[in-house]
Amino acid sequence: MHYPNGKKNNGFHQPSATNRSMGFSNRGMTLEEDINATNKFYRDTNKAVIHKKPTPVQVVNVHYPKRSAAVITEGYFKQPSTTDYNGVYRSRHIDFEAKETKNKTRFPLANIHAHQINHMKSILNHGGICFLIIRFSVYNETYYIPAETFFPFWDGQFNDGKKSIPYETIQNKGYKIPFHLQARVDYLAMIDQLYF
Amino acid sequence: MHYPNGKKNNGFHQPSATNRSMGFSNRGMTLEEDINATNKFYRDTNKAVIHKKPTPVQVVNVHYPKRSAAVITEGYFKQPSTTDYNGVYRSRHIDFEAKETKNKTRFPLANIHAHQINHMKSILNHGGICFLIIRFSVYNETYYIPAETFFPFWDGQFNDGKKSIPYETIQNKGYKIPFHLQARVDYLAMIDQLYF
Repeated sequence: MHYPNGKKNNGFHQPSATNRSMGFSNRGMTLEEDINATNKFYRDTNKAVIHKKPTPVQVVNVHYPKRSAAVITEGYFKQPSTTDYNGVYRSRHIDFEAKETKNKTRFPLANIHAHQINHMKSILNHGGICFLIIRFSVYNETYYIPAETFFPFWDGQFNDGKKSIPYETIQNKGYKIPFHLQARVDYLAMIDQLYF
Repeated sequence: MHYPNGKKNNGFHQPSATNRSMGFSNRGMTLEEDINATNKFYRDTNKAVIHKKPTPVQVVNVHYPKRSAAVITEGYFKQPSTTDYNGVYRSRHIDFEAKETKNKTRFPLANIHAHQINHMKSILNHGGICFLIIRFSVYNETYYIPAETFFPFWDGQFNDGKKSIPYETIQNKGYKIPFHLQARVDYLAMIDQLYF
């Protein structure tokens, strides 16, 4: 079997059952889908317990029909105050945020919010392992960026005004995450290298 | 100041700004409100980073009005597959579930779901600290129960058919969590005793 990783894809990101069943890399899967599948694989194989947090919803109105489930009839998406993923691996607390960009040359810092940065700084401060997963979807490349590597770029925007990180910098300072058929974004491989 | 802890309350649980500003214990606050306030205090004082996970909502229909926020017009509450709270404290992964009962004599096991038990067993297995916080609201008493103490009762129901844990057993096997004005459910005090 061949998995033509690293080949440029066509830029479209609709999930494609055909491609998947034919084993053609993860082209067409969103980063979130890939990470959710990876986390499920980690749980199923008893390797780690890591979940995506539910999207926070502010519920305004709920209708309670007789003899059936409550229906939310008015609700709003709230901005998350933390990162999207956390859990435990080899007794360490794991916490990360994942973003993909269609940009070919840089990762725009606007993808991350200030309160998420504050959260990540606190996690590190309390001994957790904290990082970002950034995918350049046009290259189908996914990088592991330690939070402590990311912070200077985030903080720098308020001094030098640079609102993005160049693709080359992420290639140099980040770690390219391997793709495996089941651990599609095998970020624990990076953690094994960096922390154990 | 006196905090008449341990006194029976009247069984009502509406939040009461009057009681709170007068410093009358936490009568009238729900367990969830107390834990959220405690976690905020822990974060504000840089003691730990622990959050309640958002309630999972299955979004079925979203309306996108022009020039205003997306509105969820049909959604349903989903059953959580994990516990409600997690985070990091003194480099340890923390994971717990919190339940209050109005029952005076026993804690009904139906308050906890099988997949939550499986989740808690996995957390322990991977080196996390895992427990339950159980409040008997009529006595205004809140207990810390290590997950490993809880499991035999949960598993036992499928052998001996006992669907609840007697109040006396929780008094004996659990740890009564102290109430403080800011750390209203000061469960980290228990963790300090048990793990450090």
